[in-house]
Amino acid sequence: MALGTLYLIPCPISDATPADAVLPAGNRAAVDSLDYFIVEDERSARRFLSRYGVSKPIDSMTFVRLDEHTQPGAEVERMVEPLLHGRSAGVISEAGCPAVADPGQLVVEACHRHGIRVVPLVGPSSILMAVMASGLGGQTFAFNGYVPVREPDRSRTLKRLESRALAERQPQAVIEAPYRNVKFMEQILKTCAPTTRLCVATDVTSPNEYIRTASVGEWRKAGIPDINKRPTIFIIGR
Amino acid sequence: MALGTLYLIPCPISDATPADAVLPAGNRAAVDSLDYFIVEDERSARRFLSRYGVSKPIDSMTFVRLDEHTQPGAEVERMVEPLLHGRSAGVISEAGCPAVADPGQLVVEACHRHGIRVVPLVGPSSILMAVMASGLGGQTFAFNGYVPVREPDRSRTLKRLESRALAERQPQAVIEAPYRNVKFMEQILKTCAPTTRLCVATDVTSPNEYIRTASVGEWRKAGIPDINKRPTIFIIGR
Repeated sequence: MALGTLYLIPCPISDATPADAVLPAGNRAAVDSLDYFIVEDERSARRFLSRYGVSKPIDSMTFVRLDEHTQPGAEVERMVEPLLHGRSAGVISEAGCPAVADPGQLVVEACHRHGIRVVPLVGPSSILMAVMASGLGGQTFAFNGYVPVREPDRSRTLKRLESRALAERQPQAVIEAPYRNVKFMEQILKTCAPTTRLCVATDVTSPNEYIRTASVGEWRKAGIPDINKRPTIFIIGR
Repeated sequence: MALGTLYLIPCPISDATPADAVLPAGNRAAVDSLDYFIVEDERSARRFLSRYGVSKPIDSMTFVRLDEHTQPGAEVERMVEPLLHGRSAGVISEAGCPAVADPGQLVVEACHRHGIRVVPLVGPSSILMAVMASGLGGQTFAFNGYVPVREPDRSRTLKRLESRALAERQPQAVIEAPYRNVKFMEQILKTCAPTTRLCVATDVTSPNEYIRTASVGEWRKAGIPDINKRPTIFIIGR
């Protein structure tokens, strides 16, 4: 029997952004063909599908949750089981592109192990769009997820990322829980050298998008922008 | 006078892919508003705009070339000049998302220096889509561009990327000139440990897209897939 296909289905990052502003029309055919979804959060996945205007009734669809509490192993294998029997599935994360900086990667890994085809669809990635708009990303860049919260690990990690950004010319992107953004940026400005550059990319793709790159010295003078509780990517570069 | 805006305009990666399969409808309004483009290759930019069905006649538009021969400084400043006088511009690279792994980053950097707003649009990025579909990218990943061609730098770089992928759990993406893909993958399989995982993502978004992750040991048995002269992202992971 033919195996199913695993589609990685991006959704808008911001609720204020209509789907067709950030998702290609071509994604719809894939989404419309599916009735099985592996999702980070069922409520937000249902809301996305309903706003997206999918053709099948949402109540007839199967949703399975794959979040940060999901363990690799039996639980993930059960999610893949229908694909082994020919049913295709879509992975939807809470915002943006699934399987990058979210737990969706577990089911992708399992699919490769079983020889199941994995098809990524195009959509908004705040990480990639921040790198594009930063002007820092020439030939290379890295995304590092969250920086440790506790000291001295936090300052040490920031120092290590700055060294790498400078020595390897590899801009280093990081994120923080949005309610800690202001404090976090203060720490970056305190820890990094005045000539090191910092891109702050806030609410990417939303109508309030704010993206600016300046040196740490310039940021110290300009002060912290309005990033409190707003999803932000910080990129440290040379 | 109000400054112009710099739009980063993705285009399809593959000529075989229609624009609306990979570009959101929302991009069109931005593209239609522009008559000034900073492009990696004028011929391919014109072809893209014509296929995309822009509303203005293409011959009435201004194109300026920004490629790997462009020097930072006076030449880039001249490109930014119209934006300082209120004209907006679009950056178009040869394929996919501009200003990542291409020279577009120079004009983005100059815009930030002048306080000009930079707006990234959504589109296909083979790098990001490969990371999504690899199943390797959990919380972090890095893109390293090209690996040096000459030995011993080449093997050394591969070893260093493998160590980083394993020790930091940070998957390491690299590219090679497509005509060297087969040889390059042979070198990866020779250099890396059998348990190290390797994702091969070829012709991403095209009808012939091929994406597979397996251990180096499994790849050695399976042999090199059909990647000769086909654009490919390689990701080394744990």
